[in-house]
Amino acid sequence: MSTTNRRKFIATAATVAAGTVAASATNLPMEKSKYPIVHHVFFWLKNPGSVADRDRIIEGLKTLKKIDTIKELRIGVVASTEKRDVVDNSWAVSELMFFENLEGQATYQSHPIHQQFIKDCSHLWEKVIVYDAIDAV
Amino acid sequence: MSTTNRRKFIATAATVAAGTVAASATNLPMEKSKYPIVHHVFFWLKNPGSVADRDRIIEGLKTLKKIDTIKELRIGVVASTEKRDVVDNSWAVSELMFFENLEGQATYQSHPIHQQFIKDCSHLWEKVIVYDAIDAV
Repeated sequence: MSTTNRRKFIATAATVAAGTVAASATNLPMEKSKYPIVHHVFFWLKNPGSVADRDRIIEGLKTLKKIDTIKELRIGVVASTEKRDVVDNSWAVSELMFFENLEGQATYQSHPIHQQFIKDCSHLWEKVIVYDAIDAV
Repeated sequence: MSTTNRRKFIATAATVAAGTVAASATNLPMEKSKYPIVHHVFFWLKNPGSVADRDRIIEGLKTLKKIDTIKELRIGVVASTEKRDVVDNSWAVSELMFFENLEGQATYQSHPIHQQFIKDCSHLWEKVIVYDAIDAV
């Protein structure tokens, strides 16, 4: 490596390192998110307690990750937190997605992969509730 | 900078750069999250439509960011997505939190800052629904 190239490499590495700090900061509480649209969906099974049906929905949800307007996707099941009156633990599967903007969410809704998921799995669920939020701060 | 120090610096910078790639990857769909416990709370106001009451809850929620087991905190309001039967847009404020583990969530529940928030703001809400999820994949 020539001195010039070495300097360039050091400069690049330093820039990337600075980028790391910035990236980490977005994980701190209350930092502005790049993906302020939160789409959280809860599914209740037609056969409550069916692990097989639950897993089929989970597998179906995994296919959604190919939709590029979904910036982050979390597939969840009920966590064993303390039972309290306010905690709804009657659902079976959740999908939590983050979008950059409302257009990204709309694109997802009509996307063929999403439509295919509904076609393949909607017979398995009894009820769906969707919450769409946008960061307030 | 001596050659040895320069090499050390380059090695460190390269390690940090590698860390960046790993950090970015956690934002991609379906990558394993460091914070698999998702706690999502929705608040319905006693005075629906009161922006003042909504904003008082938002201000109250901001105090929670000092609780160190909360690894990420998002405060949301209803997003103007398409109206559909499955979308519940009757709530006013949401808090979405991520925890490393169930213990972190339990610590948050009993934390004095959280208790103070409930004391200060609970007269403003009519209903609360909590969803606690853990990453399935």
